[in-house]
Amino acid sequence: MKIGILGYGNLGRGVEAAVNAAKDMELAAVYTRRAPESLKIASAEVPVKSVKDLDTGKEDIDVLIICGGSATDLPEMTPKYAAMYNVVDSFDTHANIPVHFENVDKAAKAAGKIGLISCGWDPGMFSLSRLYATAILPNGKDYTFWGRGVSQGHSDAIRRIEGVKDARQYTIPVPAALERVRNGENPELTTREKHTRECFVVAEDGADKAKIENEIKTMPNYFADYDTTVHFISEDELLRDHAGLPHGGSVIYTGETGNSGNKHVIEYSLKLDSNPEFTGAVLTAYARAVDRLNKEGVKGGKTVFDIAPSYLSPLSGDEIRAHYL
Amino acid sequence: MKIGILGYGNLGRGVEAAVNAAKDMELAAVYTRRAPESLKIASAEVPVKSVKDLDTGKEDIDVLIICGGSATDLPEMTPKYAAMYNVVDSFDTHANIPVHFENVDKAAKAAGKIGLISCGWDPGMFSLSRLYATAILPNGKDYTFWGRGVSQGHSDAIRRIEGVKDARQYTIPVPAALERVRNGENPELTTREKHTRECFVVAEDGADKAKIENEIKTMPNYFADYDTTVHFISEDELLRDHAGLPHGGSVIYTGETGNSGNKHVIEYSLKLDSNPEFTGAVLTAYARAVDRLNKEGVKGGKTVFDIAPSYLSPLSGDEIRAHYL
Repeated sequence: MKIGILGYGNLGRGVEAAVNAAKDMELAAVYTRRAPESLKIASAEVPVKSVKDLDTGKEDIDVLIICGGSATDLPEMTPKYAAMYNVVDSFDTHANIPVHFENVDKAAKAAGKIGLISCGWDPGMFSLSRLYATAILPNGKDYTFWGRGVSQGHSDAIRRIEGVKDARQYTIPVPAALERVRNGENPELTTREKHTRECFVVAEDGADKAKIENEIKTMPNYFADYDTTVHFISEDELLRDHAGLPHGGSVIYTGETGNSGNKHVIEYSLKLDSNPEFTGAVLTAYARAVDRLNKEGVKGGKTVFDIAPSYLSPLSGDEIRAHYL
Repeated sequence: MKIGILGYGNLGRGVEAAVNAAKDMELAAVYTRRAPESLKIASAEVPVKSVKDLDTGKEDIDVLIICGGSATDLPEMTPKYAAMYNVVDSFDTHANIPVHFENVDKAAKAAGKIGLISCGWDPGMFSLSRLYATAILPNGKDYTFWGRGVSQGHSDAIRRIEGVKDARQYTIPVPAALERVRNGENPELTTREKHTRECFVVAEDGADKAKIENEIKTMPNYFADYDTTVHFISEDELLRDHAGLPHGGSVIYTGETGNSGNKHVIEYSLKLDSNPEFTGAVLTAYARAVDRLNKEGVKGGKTVFDIAPSYLSPLSGDEIRAHYL
């Protein structure tokens, strides 16, 4: 199975690691918008090519994993390349999923390819947990908590403040809220009650720290609705203690059955040392399914909901039943 | 969607509750090996019929959910009825799954029906968690812990001891083992290190309690390999404090990605007030999928691994993507 990667940021490197770990896959090429000769990738023997090479529609790849941003890259790239290749993306702008799905579905169907969108862990594995739980227990309620983990969007927002040299922001679930949900209390929780935000900030020399802290804490959408803590640290400390991109979280579903008030709690949780490496591993497993399904004649837009789990595994049906059932 | 239930024990009643809670389903009939007129079911308006009525192959049901025992009922019943109806069972004798699957597959394929076996939570939802995790992180290890919950097989084993009037056995994960696994230590754990067993026993008047306790603790396979605690209680206490059938557990998978030793912990856990009601709810969700897939022309033996999650939900693809992705 020949995999192409488009985009070589954190996520592209995560996919690269996962493809190299899969015995049934080969990394065929990494495609970039940069000058190919300027990009050095971890897999020394794999060619780096220009994104323009994809436009021929003739690259020798079974699935293209598109590692771009949801804001501007994926809405354009995924439908475009779904018209030529099987593609997988991690589109996560929730409100725009219907439009994105429709665009990818149309292009993929016309080309006889599969375009699987919104893959990863949320959307992705967390979405699956929500769907399975609600299908089993229709009389119930789901909660999603994120963290403790680094939010790259929130870290970027802090970096844009005047006087900030670098920053890292952690999203943290409120333990009391987690406990109430796990106890099956089905609480109504405000944004502030569910998560706190902790920021580690490197200020420029002579910057006004009180002003920076105030700007962070009052920033609309990003921080104003949360209890936010700001720590000023040195650049050395940031590099030493906050170099990783850990993340995770929990989907907790509580539902009832029968007439005796029997309650059930279903929890799916992730604790990830590297958000991009785990996300890359999910995209890679779904790329396997996409290739196999397309070879069976399946085409069109898909999400994780449409993929039978057996297609994710390189093992045969007999082996899967023997080892995992 | 018309559902038939074969067998009206704890599981049959759990399925009945789930079918009645599903807006797109109707409980068509309960089939029993007892004299139908002797059986009173919770759904007053639903007919109770003889199991023999099924043999015509002409009962007006879309899916038959078979609620029998794995030891002797299901190996015979599921292939037999898969030759006439779409069927779902909860076969859980792990070593015999390959043979059972083959028998059901053959019968269902010949009849153009679907026979979905080994459904529930383990096998079932726990199996799915193991498969998803290993497909995403091939370099890893899975652990399954059961409990705290009532093991009916172990409770029955105690009841067969001379001088025992009634008994309830709880399987309990060892907290220290759970913690080591959640920390990603990948420990090698013996049977004794993973679970303890706690027994509540009602002795006959004048029975030799020391002898009963010794017989329990030394019983091969069931108790000898575990740290087992035995409490003698009154019948009133048993009925008051141990009437329910709670269960649950966790599948914990730890795996690595990349070359920097990044670890990830995936955990799926269940905390169930009623094991049979939850299991019945899972069987019912899969019955929905079986009916829909069969109407699309799919046939043969299936397990939870073969079912795309979207088929479990009564909602449309658009609705699922909007609400759960």
